[in-house]
This record gives sequence, structure tokens and C-alpha cells, in this order.
Amino acid sequence: MSVVLTRKVHFCASHRYHNPEFSDEENRRIFGKCNHPNGHGHNYLCEVSVIGDVDPATGMVIDLKKLSVLLDAVIMERYDHKNLNLDVPEFAKTIPTSENIAIDIWRHLEGRLEGCRLHRIRLYEDPTLFVEYLGE
Amino acid sequence: MSVVLTRKVHFCASHRYHNPEFSDEENRRIFGKCNHPNGHGHNYLCEVSVIGDVDPATGMVIDLKKLSVLLDAVIMERYDHKNLNLDVPEFAKTIPTSENIAIDIWRHLEGRLEGCRLHRIRLYEDPTLFVEYLGE
Amino acid sequence: MSVVLTRKVHFCASHRYHNPEFSDEENRRIFGKCNHPNGHGHNYLCEVSVIGDVDPATGMVIDLKKLSVLLDAVIMERYDHKNLNLDVPEFAKTIPTSENIAIDIWRHLEGRLEGCRLHRIRLYEDPTLFVEYLGE
Amino acid sequence: MSVVLTRKVHFCASHRYHNPEFSDEENRRIFGKCNHPNGHGHNYLCEVSVIGDVDPATGMVIDLKKLSVLLDAVIMERYDHKNLNLDVPEFAKTIPTSENIAIDIWRHLEGRLEGCRLHRIRLYEDPTLFVEYLGE
Amino acid sequence: MSVVLTRKVHFCASHRYHNPEFSDEENRRIFGKCNHPNGHGHNYLCEVSVIGDVDPATGMVIDLKKLSVLLDAVIMERYDHKNLNLDVPEFAKTIPTSENIAIDIWRHLEGRLEGCRLHRIRLYEDPTLFVEYLGE
Amino acid sequence: MSVVLTRKVHFCASHRYHNPEFSDEENRRIFGKCNHPNGHGHNYLCEVSVIGDVDPATGMVIDLKKLSVLLDAVIMERYDHKNLNLDVPEFAKTIPTSENIAIDIWRHLEGRLEGCRLHRIRLYEDPTLFVEYLGE
Repeated sequence: MSVVLTRKVHFCASHRYHNPEFSDEENRRIFGKCNHPNGHGHNYLCEVSVIGDVDPATGMVIDLKKLSVLLDAVIMERYDHKNLNLDVPEFAKTIPTSENIAIDIWRHLEGRLEGCRLHRIRLYEDPTLFVEYLGE
Repeated sequence: MSVVLTRKVHFCASHRYHNPEFSDEENRRIFGKCNHPNGHGHNYLCEVSVIGDVDPATGMVIDLKKLSVLLDAVIMERYDHKNLNLDVPEFAKTIPTSENIAIDIWRHLEGRLEGCRLHRIRLYEDPTLFVEYLGE
Repeated sequence: MSVVLTRKVHFCASHRYHNPEFSDEENRRIFGKCNHPNGHGHNYLCEVSVIGDVDPATGMVIDLKKLSVLLDAVIMERYDHKNLNLDVPEFAKTIPTSENIAIDIWRHLEGRLEGCRLHRIRLYEDPTLFVEYLGE
Repeated sequence: MSVVLTRKVHFCASHRYHNPEFSDEENRRIFGKCNHPNGHGHNYLCEVSVIGDVDPATGMVIDLKKLSVLLDAVIMERYDHKNLNLDVPEFAKTIPTSENIAIDIWRHLEGRLEGCRLHRIRLYEDPTLFVEYLGE
Repeated sequence: MSVVLTRKVHFCASHRYHNPEFSDEENRRIFGKCNHPNGHGHNYLCEVSVIGDVDPATGMVIDLKKLSVLLDAVIMERYDHKNLNLDVPEFAKTIPTSENIAIDIWRHLEGRLEGCRLHRIRLYEDPTLFVEYLGE
Repeated sequence: MSVVLTRKVHFCASHRYHNPEFSDEENRRIFGKCNHPNGHGHNYLCEVSVIGDVDPATGMVIDLKKLSVLLDAVIMERYDHKNLNLDVPEFAKTIPTSENIAIDIWRHLEGRLEGCRLHRIRLYEDPTLFVEYLGE
């Protein structure tokens, strides 16, 4: 019996969308207000889903304390109260869109879960827009 | 790397559930309060999901401004502040249930997305009830 | 020790904003999409607040079952799944705006609470807009 | 045309995580605060999803009144305002984790739906943690 | 310039409504399902509001880290993952209704804030019911 | 009959808490992660409340279209997708805390409402923390 378990975490960060290979005019046209020179920010909500069998001895798919420690290290330490472009090396040359942040979270969590597998990263950048990445 | 992106839009509309091929008594029994002669209404929340590859130059699955223009035309213009039975031709003979509204939205969006595919229409008619249509 | 207790109830209804003393053009200008001839609708969220002393024997400000019966009669029976303009006599000549609905709910609840007083009616017509009436 | 319909129901219950085959120290280490002797509780939110074809005569996947009666019997009567360990026979020897509650709900609903199939049980034990069971 | 600042905290707990001076029949009639012998539980949401002048040097009404430490001690340590009737001395003889919990929180916070005053305790026992206590 | 009407608007922005009159060590101790050099950001939710008499001809306290135009100019144009410290002149020397942003919004809205008065600015910087300013 396989169950998907999802834990939500929140972080707040700033970012800017800008591709140096585009002209200024192209950057403004493509990214709109997200290209504003001094950046802006969001409260991000990330839902991390894992899938696995329920352990009959504990009734659980994963040890929630270990999951919290992992999410603190991979998500909160790296992103929370940060400027994604300047403070997270992965986004030095990659634009920190929600799509790319979700993929980045997947890559840092994959293979680090005991007894279950990573299933999905769902990331809200505001209450009206979210992305989902399932690892492929 | 394929990512699902979901944009939420809200519209408010009125409707009535009534099948002229049923007797009045059958309509009341089957549709309950939703058959009330003068109709009622809802704040609908529609989640439109698209799936596609992340463009390396923009970090995005879809141009969000173009998506907004499309959702305005297909959803907001056609449904918002309308009486679904009287103002939307598709519901002249089809009962405007959430199931049928979701299918109607799919049909009007399908094939009109650039660089990605329509993945799912999720429609809430109130915070406790929602439907999902994936195109088949 | 005086405590305010608030119970939320939801109802869905349709309505139209139209003042027969205005010209058609004035109605459209003043009420915009809310003047649309065939009406539209909302999921309303009403928060009914009462204030009173905590009964030492029960630890409560009001008997919640009696409050539910009252709210069913005054709010749900009168508004839910209704067309406010056509089905609620109070709105035959009064425009069923959120402001007027809140006042109407106050008038029907006032004086009908045992052991406490009505304190406030807060009414959301959608998640981004609400009104509050305190009885004067 | 197959549509998934989801109805949300809420119930509140208390529980305790404790495996009598573990030592007291193991129980505390594995279950943390959830092992506290006198138990604690939650407002659970359960999303029951069914899948089926849309009936052309009603526009619906399932009769919502029949679904409500079923959910009242299977979920509300059995869990609401109860102590899951002491009041629900299924949890006399099974730990009432969200994983096990979701599986228990699936087992009691499966095969009791007319004209559609059970698709998914999603259960929130608080706004930041939820599980999903799809029947296998 | 006086500003009200509100911090939300969540805790989960179980409780039972029972007055030993009432007969069993009276307890059932007055408290309904909340009188169930083995108790039940909730996810409580508590909003603690303080009021004070904005410090020109920090732009803040209160040091948020000190507030968090205080709320951990007064609310989380005393209530979270507890059985309110059995684990919180204040509720040995007082029924742990939301009204009484809000008053209890007020009494333990009052006078312990630096540079501002306690303004209001708002407590949700579920998303549809909340109480507010302002200290008198 | 006086009614309070509240409209919610969302904006996203970045900011940094830093007082140049404090030492670096004091800034870190007082502001914690909010002092991080490259800043961070939030999705802000602002609730603007006005109070006034209900116009018998319209059933409304205020013209909602005019209110939207005003909120766009005062809140969205000035804050949305901006860096509050660098892009908003008021915060060149004042720390852009939620307290100070709420006061800044009040000052820019006060006296610009027709037929009603500004009542309250409530500002959420995340779902767990909000401030309220009533003009004095």
C-alpha cells in the first residue's frame, strides 16, 4: 500500500528575471515587471511530496522529523530571506523562475530520502500561480 | 524537463439546473435547491494547467502575458458576471454543471497554447466541491 | 468577562444591481458588469458575531446549537440558492448589494439572541471584498 | 468524457501514536509529541475524489446527495468528535496516522459508489501536512 | 502613531466538554458531541494582537523574536499536542471552551510584553468558529 | 447606517531592514534574517477599509471602480514588483517594515476618498503576521 505524503514549507525571497543575452528592450517585453532593475520578492509555498509504503510498525511513509531536517537544509537554508539571483549559486546564470526553482529543489532532494522516493515538487510563487515538477 | 504550470482565475456567475425532459417533480428530486426557478450563483475558481518543456532562455513553460490574454477571452469574457444558462450559447441545451463548464473551458482552450499543451482544468464551484477534466 | 464569538455561514445566491430610477446608460456606468440584464452570482461568506459574558457553568457565550438554528432560519432559508432580487421580498425595491444584505441580516437577527447581543455582521461577496455592519 | 469530482468534508478527532511493541523510550523518540500519554487532536480535512463519465441527462458524475449520505455514514459518523484510538475499532491495534486513516476511509468507501469509481482519498491533518491514497 | 501587530500561532490539542455538576443527560443535551466520553480534538489557530507606538529606530512595535519566545512558552509549551482537560492545570475544573482558552492565554500574556500592550486574543477552533477576548 | 467596506489588494516587493546608525552587529541582532545584505521579499496582502453611509440610490458606501483606480495609483503603482528601499522615496531613510508601509499607505490614501472616510489599513507580510493602522 503506497501512500503519497506532502509537507508544505514557506520561504520568502527576492529575485529578478533578466537574461543578459537579450537586449534591455527584449528583457522588458518578455519579463515585464519581473525585469524591474532592483528586483522584487515573494512568499513562496513549496509542497514536497514523497511516495512509499506505509511502515506497519509506525503507520508512516517517512520519519517526519528527518524530513523536516532535510527540508530545512535544502530549502530553508538555501532560499529563505535570500536574494535568489545573488545568494544562490545555481541562479547565477539560470533565471530563478518558479519552474527553475522547482527543478533545483528536486535535484537537491532526490536520492536523499530514506525508505521512500521523491514524488513531486509543487511551488506557489503567489496564491494564483504554481508549478509542478515530477523529475523528468 | 517537463513542468506543469497552473494559473488560477476567478469568475462569478449564476445558473440553474433544469432538464426540460424531466418532470418538475423529477427536476426537484434530482437537482434539489439547484433547480430553484430563479437560479442562484457562485464564485467559481478555475485552475488552468499547461504542461511543457522549460525554455532555457526564459526559464518558463509559457508566456504568462499571452496566457492571461487567452484566459480573459475564453473564460472571463464568456462567463464572468453572466447567467450561464441564458448568456452562454453552449449552455442553452446543456446543463451548466461544474463538470460541463470544465469540459467547455477545455474545448475552448485546447489547441490555442503556444509551445505547450493543455494539461488539466480544475474548477471549484465552492470551497468544498471541485471537478477536474484532463481532456478525455 | 465579555467575549465575542463569531460563526461563519456560507450561502450562494444570484443578484443584479439595477435602479429603475436611473437610465439604462446610468445603470451601466454606475454598476458596470453587476448591471448585466440576466444577473450573476456569488458564494457569500457571512460572519455573525455576538458578544456576551461567558457562562461559568458552560464556558460559553451562547448555545451554539440554538445559534445554528437561528442562522439557518434567518440566513440560509432566506438567501441560499436564491435569486436575491426575485426571491427575497426585502430586495424587491432595495438593491441587494453586500452593504444592504449585511444590514438586512442584522435586522432579522437583532433581538433574537438569548443571553448575548448581536455585535457585527461581516459579509464577503468574494475573497477580495467584504463589508461590516455594527447596527448603527 | 471522464471527470474527477472531489468533495471535501471536515471532522475533528483526537488520537495518540503509540506502538506497544516499542519501549517507552522508542515511542518517544519515534513519535515525539504525538506519543504524549493523554493524546491530542486535529481538525481533519478529507477530500474524497470519484471518477466517472458525465451523465448527459444530469451533467453530473455522481448524485451529490447520495455522496453526502455515504460520506456522513463512513467518515463523519465513525470519526467526527471521536477519539480515534478508543472509539474506532480499526485503530485498536493500528496506529491512527493520517496514512492509516486515509487507507481506512478508502476501504469503507470502495465499492459503494453508484455509476462511478473511487479515485483518491486526500487527508490533511493540519494545513501543512497531507497524504493521498489511490487504492494500491 | 499606534499600530496593532498580530502574530498567528497554531497548536493541536484534545479536549472534552463536561460539567460534573450537570447530570449525564444534561451534559449530552448542552454539549452535544463535545461531551463524548473519550474526547476529540482540534487544530487551534491563535492570533495574538499587541498595540504600541512604532519605534523610529527599528520601524517596529515589538521585537518579533522576543514575541516568538513568549508565545512558545505561554501557548505552545502549555497547549500543543496536549489534552487540555488533563494536561493544563487551569482546565482541571474549568471547561476548556474556546472562550476559556482565549481568556487563559490573555492572563498568561498580560503584563509580559515590553514596550507595548496586549490588545486582543482571537482563537479559532475550526475555520468556521472563533472567539475574541480584549481583556475585560 | 454606517458600513465599513474593505477591498483587498496584493503586491509583491523586496526589502531589507537596516539602520545605518546601528553597527553591523546590532543590525544583525535586531533584524535577524531581515538584515541580510541582498534583501528578500514578500507577497503583501493589503486590506483597505473605508467607512461611510450607504447611498440609498446605489446601495453602496463607495464607487468600487473609483476605489480600484485609487488603489492602483497609491499601492500598486508605487509598490508592486518594486524594491521598497530603492524604488520608493519614502523608504530611502525609513525602514520598510510592515508598520511603516501601512502608515505610508494611510498617508497617501487619506483625504482622497469621495463620500466616505478611510477607516483602517491592514497589511499582511505573510499569512502569519499582519499589522493594522487606524490613522492615529
